[in-house]
Amino acid sequence: MKKLRVAVFGGSGYAGGELLRLLHLHPHVEVTVATSEKSAGMPVSSVWPHLTAYSELVFDPMNTAALAARADVFFLALPHKAAQDTAAELIGLGKRVIDLSADFRLRNPDTYESWYQTPHTKRDLLAEAVYGLPERYRSRIRAARLIANPGCYPTSAILGLMPALEAGLVSHPEGIVIDSKSGVSGAGRSLQQGFLFSEVNDGFKAYGLAVHRHTPEIEQELSAIAESEIVVEFAPHLVPMDRGILTTIYAPLAKAVTLDDVHEIYSKRYAGEPFVTVLPTGQYPVTKNVRGSNHCHIGLQVNKRTGRLIIVSVIDNLVKGAAGQAVHNMNIMMGFDETTAIAGMGVFP
Amino acid sequence: MKKLRVAVFGGSGYAGGELLRLLHLHPHVEVTVATSEKSAGMPVSSVWPHLTAYSELVFDPMNTAALAARADVFFLALPHKAAQDTAAELIGLGKRVIDLSADFRLRNPDTYESWYQTPHTKRDLLAEAVYGLPERYRSRIRAARLIANPGCYPTSAILGLMPALEAGLVSHPEGIVIDSKSGVSGAGRSLQQGFLFSEVNDGFKAYGLAVHRHTPEIEQELSAIAESEIVVEFAPHLVPMDRGILTTIYAPLAKAVTLDDVHEIYSKRYAGEPFVTVLPTGQYPVTKNVRGSNHCHIGLQVNKRTGRLIIVSVIDNLVKGAAGQAVHNMNIMMGFDETTAIAGMGVFP
Amino acid sequence: MKKLRVAVFGGSGYAGGELLRLLHLHPHVEVTVATSEKSAGMPVSSVWPHLTAYSELVFDPMNTAALAARADVFFLALPHKAAQDTAAELIGLGKRVIDLSADFRLRNPDTYESWYQTPHTKRDLLAEAVYGLPERYRSRIRAARLIANPGCYPTSAILGLMPALEAGLVSHPEGIVIDSKSGVSGAGRSLQQGFLFSEVNDGFKAYGLAVHRHTPEIEQELSAIAESEIVVEFAPHLVPMDRGILTTIYAPLAKAVTLDDVHEIYSKRYAGEPFVTVLPTGQYPVTKNVRGSNHCHIGLQVNKRTGRLIIVSVIDNLVKGAAGQAVHNMNIMMGFDETTAIAGMGVFP
Amino acid sequence: MKKLRVAVFGGSGYAGGELLRLLHLHPHVEVTVATSEKSAGMPVSSVWPHLTAYSELVFDPMNTAALAARADVFFLALPHKAAQDTAAELIGLGKRVIDLSADFRLRNPDTYESWYQTPHTKRDLLAEAVYGLPERYRSRIRAARLIANPGCYPTSAILGLMPALEAGLVSHPEGIVIDSKSGVSGAGRSLQQGFLFSEVNDGFKAYGLAVHRHTPEIEQELSAIAESEIVVEFAPHLVPMDRGILTTIYAPLAKAVTLDDVHEIYSKRYAGEPFVTVLPTGQYPVTKNVRGSNHCHIGLQVNKRTGRLIIVSVIDNLVKGAAGQAVHNMNIMMGFDETTAIAGMGVFP
Repeated sequence: MKKLRVAVFGGSGYAGGELLRLLHLHPHVEVTVATSEKSAGMPVSSVWPHLTAYSELVFDPMNTAALAARADVFFLALPHKAAQDTAAELIGLGKRVIDLSADFRLRNPDTYESWYQTPHTKRDLLAEAVYGLPERYRSRIRAARLIANPGCYPTSAILGLMPALEAGLVSHPEGIVIDSKSGVSGAGRSLQQGFLFSEVNDGFKAYGLAVHRHTPEIEQELSAIAESEIVVEFAPHLVPMDRGILTTIYAPLAKAVTLDDVHEIYSKRYAGEPFVTVLPTGQYPVTKNVRGSNHCHIGLQVNKRTGRLIIVSVIDNLVKGAAGQAVHNMNIMMGFDETTAIAGMGVFP
Repeated sequence: MKKLRVAVFGGSGYAGGELLRLLHLHPHVEVTVATSEKSAGMPVSSVWPHLTAYSELVFDPMNTAALAARADVFFLALPHKAAQDTAAELIGLGKRVIDLSADFRLRNPDTYESWYQTPHTKRDLLAEAVYGLPERYRSRIRAARLIANPGCYPTSAILGLMPALEAGLVSHPEGIVIDSKSGVSGAGRSLQQGFLFSEVNDGFKAYGLAVHRHTPEIEQELSAIAESEIVVEFAPHLVPMDRGILTTIYAPLAKAVTLDDVHEIYSKRYAGEPFVTVLPTGQYPVTKNVRGSNHCHIGLQVNKRTGRLIIVSVIDNLVKGAAGQAVHNMNIMMGFDETTAIAGMGVFP
Repeated sequence: MKKLRVAVFGGSGYAGGELLRLLHLHPHVEVTVATSEKSAGMPVSSVWPHLTAYSELVFDPMNTAALAARADVFFLALPHKAAQDTAAELIGLGKRVIDLSADFRLRNPDTYESWYQTPHTKRDLLAEAVYGLPERYRSRIRAARLIANPGCYPTSAILGLMPALEAGLVSHPEGIVIDSKSGVSGAGRSLQQGFLFSEVNDGFKAYGLAVHRHTPEIEQELSAIAESEIVVEFAPHLVPMDRGILTTIYAPLAKAVTLDDVHEIYSKRYAGEPFVTVLPTGQYPVTKNVRGSNHCHIGLQVNKRTGRLIIVSVIDNLVKGAAGQAVHNMNIMMGFDETTAIAGMGVFP
Repeated sequence: MKKLRVAVFGGSGYAGGELLRLLHLHPHVEVTVATSEKSAGMPVSSVWPHLTAYSELVFDPMNTAALAARADVFFLALPHKAAQDTAAELIGLGKRVIDLSADFRLRNPDTYESWYQTPHTKRDLLAEAVYGLPERYRSRIRAARLIANPGCYPTSAILGLMPALEAGLVSHPEGIVIDSKSGVSGAGRSLQQGFLFSEVNDGFKAYGLAVHRHTPEIEQELSAIAESEIVVEFAPHLVPMDRGILTTIYAPLAKAVTLDDVHEIYSKRYAGEPFVTVLPTGQYPVTKNVRGSNHCHIGLQVNKRTGRLIIVSVIDNLVKGAAGQAVHNMNIMMGFDETTAIAGMGVFP
């Protein structure tokens, strides 16, 4: 079988490096293009010493027009805003695009402009972009030309709440609190004092309270699931670890349910999903169990004293929260087995 | 001046070791007794290689009657339940006791028995025990014979919420969510697979959801401050770091207030406190900034979209959350300068 | 194609867990048996929450006779000494065995008995056991019934020194110093205070100086390569990280050679090896670049001032240092493509 | 008693921050000046949130002439080369200077120029500068105007080897190998990709092999002690931890000695030293035991098989390896009790 030619735009950031790592394991795919502005002209393996297999692939500088002919599917691991034009140009050339930035995630461009403080100039494309969460939009992904690959925090929050909202378990949704904790790779590879080892190690902190840009993305999807507008309290934190997001969700229960009831609802909802595991009651998920893998683990608790459902979900922010979910989307779009190249389980310990 | 003779009962756990470290810096105090069951007969410095100064102090086995004469003030770093009898015996002998266990923290012994699943046999002593949070009970601590040194999580939660509750900022308190994250030393030094380095490092997890024993302690103190019963959602998590607790508190606001208003209330409340710092608005606390120190840092945010006050407080669980606060209580009881031996700032990085 | 049935004896330790993780990715293999004394009767996925795919495989208690019929190839991830009888019994039943313990690594049983302080009762089997370092013994591995899978430290040391010794670059070999640093998973999953997170994190230490049991294994193989007896100074250290060994080797040069000369010798020696990469001069290896992978990276330096060759090699102790190399050996024995199931590159960051 | 006025030049780096932390605990000292180029005009406590006590001290820009009058003793935590002029100017004004850079450590300015690749323009001052290792130069420190505070690696290496060299235990000193491992704070606070948390965490690496600038400093002092020229193999490594250096030293023995002999020699040599502890035989030092403290712990082993003495020494690179040793030097120069402000033991865990 002739291999699918794929390109990774933005290959020298952590999400781009992870795409390259995973795509190397894909038997039906060949990475023909990888771009990097600052490392243009250098072999991938000298920029990423762990990617020894890419000793002959050399980073190209960004030039969409020139590179378009060399691949069929394009992964965009570019900063938000930069992806708008690139995606539009590639779609115009008949290519399929999986965009890991935030540029096509928010259906309402005004919301985008308000939270991201930058204009959205490709509003027409928003209509056809599909939010790439396979557990919710699998059939639409199959036919999509443009995938808006979900954010890392939203992936963990939405997978955590979806079954409860679908089943009507949650009352007055303004009471939902989403407290997320992320590993440091989520901050990317940019040089900031706050991400130096000596600043981060053996410490913990909160950031972006009340203003984090993943908030509207979470609210959009939860509202769509609940079919009513949901406003959430979303609070991110930074954990001294490489990878992983753990999201603790506090949701007021609409009615008296037992933990077993809830567990059954969740287990049924995700029964056929290759990448979501609902843990037995009494067990809570640990980020380390999904490190390096595309899996999401979910743990549940019902607090009778407070009338709340507590949901804990974990993912690897660079895999299920970025590159792995992007490959999953590609597999669905191309009709490959869904788990190809991303079947690996967590690297523990 | 003749030095005060102090004893550390339970000196081979982390809180006990920290007591020994801090007390060594105290010019008015001499540690004359340290106990350890498993290390009885060994010099402290061979059990704790970092405590080189204690090469001549040898761990005694527990024997309250025999050891009572050798000290004036007794720190109990024993497991809960074990402290009940020991404290009673020492008080009976006219000694002053600072108990780091949970045995005398809950005023209602039935609550204690229900959450700790063990009888409380010293109910009479509960009446006189003083909850050793200096920022709230300073004057009572001065005269106390028996201090119930606060738990680590409760210290961070109560200091975080106290000014807001006192000022009536929080409405329908059943909406309060307290999401805490602790370093691993909080789990003590016991041998459990879940606390092995390879299990914990580079990972993050939740535990004890809805059932953690610090819940009633938090509720007792918050209710006393608010002068009405408060039930909280308290959820602890484990961070791959040695020390530190960061508590994120979500509290529904009773009225529209600005962040500046709240900041002023907090700053005034803690103006004279040597160990509590309210950070400038826009800045959030980092556990690493209080590592090894007795300080509590508090950061604030108001989310207008959700009508919530968000409070973030950090402490070092072994210092302000245990040994340091205990020494603070001793300083107050004995009329020493309050910061003696605990004036050190955080060891950063 | 009918799948090869494989068994993992000792599946609840870290090496056993890693075998299960890797074997799941193998298209020609089915794990039919996994044993664990303490977890017998429990599903693998409840003992190892990261191994979600093994929800139907249940741990058996050890019983070689009863389990022998259920598999064709047996991986022994048992403590040393325990493997002696088990391997002999399985070989007697016509099975093929890959032993990850030290029991069949030392050709001289007296050396074994002296360093391991336990009798060797299967001396006859030693003669046919093949030391499973594919880069040196590939052809013998192909025909072997019993593989002695190399130790983690020896793998890193031997791969680091082999080209230099083969090329006669090293003079008076008594001057060789091997300073190794290992992640904590190398210590296994046993409950010891010294491996608690709070004891290890943010610290570093040496151990086993002059007496570590991997010393004779290193000396045996280096002596065989050099064709003269070599005595080494081997010193292991513990790094606060999960996985990885970095070995720094100091070897007196026999003659004046340039770094480029040495680099060429190493590059040629490992040119065809799928799992060994000699880094460009000026670049040193990082354990994190091989985390979770079967790769070995080697960096080189020549110190003209001291007349020494300095070699730095890194591996993942659980993969190339244990489970990955074991799967590599199985692939060679069975005629599978050598990289099957272990082609994954390092999980970075 | 009127307090001594001290200045910290370069107060926004890690060594500078640590000086401020320690000096705050000094009863006879007042910090009247702290400089920082990039943070000039900002309160120290806003640049260093852990240094809450410095809310009123504001960082000055560097201006030696203008600041000289405001202090009596000057700590220079500036980059090498920058300290040359500043120190000379201050000495010319009659001030006492403790320089934490490398500028006055090497007695031979040609050696300095060769290793640091920059001219030395204050050669006359070199003659009077005293290498500030109290355990060797205490009496000269007392009278010094200019202290060259030792480097972190050299401190650990020299303290480790001094007793053995003084006692003539080491033969053919060209055989000495010094393998050092340092926490990341040793790299300072500069923004480099290689020091980002995600690059460093859970990994280990070597760097600067054969070319590290601390090599000539180590050789100078060891040669002086041995009274013959010593060339060493010095190899630094980076450990994923905040603080701490562990140095493993391999030294060929001149004669057959027992471990007990060596232990006695070391114990006697350091008997009166407040900051050096020789551990009991069989025990090796752990960096975490000296974290945040000015202590050095030394462990010993004799390998009869190889005829080598193995010495392991640990220090906190920011304290005994920088700021703490600087304060120690000040205490000696000023006649204060030597342990004032630096008596604290390690913060463990």
